[in-house]
Amino acid sequence: MELNSSKKGTLVIISGFSGAGKGTVVNELIKKDNFSLSISATTRAPREGDVDGVSYFFKTKEEFEKMIEEDALIEYASYVGNYYGTPKAYVLEQLDKGNNVILEIEMQGAMKIKEKFPDAITVFITPQSFNELERRLRKRGTETEDKIKDRLNRAKEECSFMGKYDYIVINEKLEKCVEDVYNIIYAQSFRKDKSLELIECITNDFNSVK
Amino acid sequence: MELNSSKKGTLVIISGFSGAGKGTVVNELIKKDNFSLSISATTRAPREGDVDGVSYFFKTKEEFEKMIEEDALIEYASYVGNYYGTPKAYVLEQLDKGNNVILEIEMQGAMKIKEKFPDAITVFITPQSFNELERRLRKRGTETEDKIKDRLNRAKEECSFMGKYDYIVINEKLEKCVEDVYNIIYAQSFRKDKSLELIECITNDFNSVK
Repeated sequence: MELNSSKKGTLVIISGFSGAGKGTVVNELIKKDNFSLSISATTRAPREGDVDGVSYFFKTKEEFEKMIEEDALIEYASYVGNYYGTPKAYVLEQLDKGNNVILEIEMQGAMKIKEKFPDAITVFITPQSFNELERRLRKRGTETEDKIKDRLNRAKEECSFMGKYDYIVINEKLEKCVEDVYNIIYAQSFRKDKSLELIECITNDFNSVK
Repeated sequence: MELNSSKKGTLVIISGFSGAGKGTVVNELIKKDNFSLSISATTRAPREGDVDGVSYFFKTKEEFEKMIEEDALIEYASYVGNYYGTPKAYVLEQLDKGNNVILEIEMQGAMKIKEKFPDAITVFITPQSFNELERRLRKRGTETEDKIKDRLNRAKEECSFMGKYDYIVINEKLEKCVEDVYNIIYAQSFRKDKSLELIECITNDFNSVK
């Protein structure tokens, strides 16, 4: 009896302030077994090195708009004249395979997805302090002072979103943060709603013995 | 800033079939930091080796009935002429200290407590098969054939309770089961409702910087 084989994965929505280190946390998570990263669909042209189905699913405008019509996207937005969205089929297929699907997305998108997928968990990643966020943004060294100020101001506004997430994790040390998020996701696999087949299996086994 | 210091512990209600190994799992858990075992109150007389406040809180019948009247018990039952119950004050005090309180209790009691304490988590521990449950009960070697049959028949009936628990954990290997339950409990500490002070703290910090 393969008791755990039939468990569905968990859709994990990760957000946080710009500079909180979410990208690094996500990269560490998807190195693990049974973890997939959600791949976005886009109408922007492939760049050198882009691989269809790996970096993005590349679509024409018509194809993308057909996906919108057919409700084939979990969420979508347009940005600088191109569409970006999360194809539903890939996510559902991965979850059915028992993989946990990680979706890194900004806060309003996250809340929309949670509404559509109440079984998903939302995780908010934050540094331990504002000073630390500022330090990390400056350390990147890739952005102008204005851009950094913009990001910091947006972070102040975004504080009001924290209380809408299921879990809040501090990213003070990367390894600890990755482990904490991993544990949160791992714990989901024992949830009753993920264990319906297990419960049925045990019940049948117990009642088959006279 | 001590970001995690103010977090309340989690009330963890553990049940399972007789012979599932819950007692051993609980004993391993309470060896860990920040874990307390709920101590029952009883009107039965102390036996040799019993220490008040460790084995039980020993009460007179009048004291116990006063606790019932004053709603000072999370749950109680009477058994062979004595009262047994779970004092609320001790549990709340431990949770306030940030300790996770483990309460091993039968299934109907578990459901009553979950109703009163919706923040509590309920964990159901099961062996991987009926044959394994039977093997464990026989291995104890302390009970008559009739008693074993009684326990096995009760387990069959109790299957219907599994679906009412928040988490279902298979106890196939003790270490793995303890680790799984530990992870489930640990993950609770990141829940939004346990992070209200953290959210406030971060928000205040972010908005104190001009």
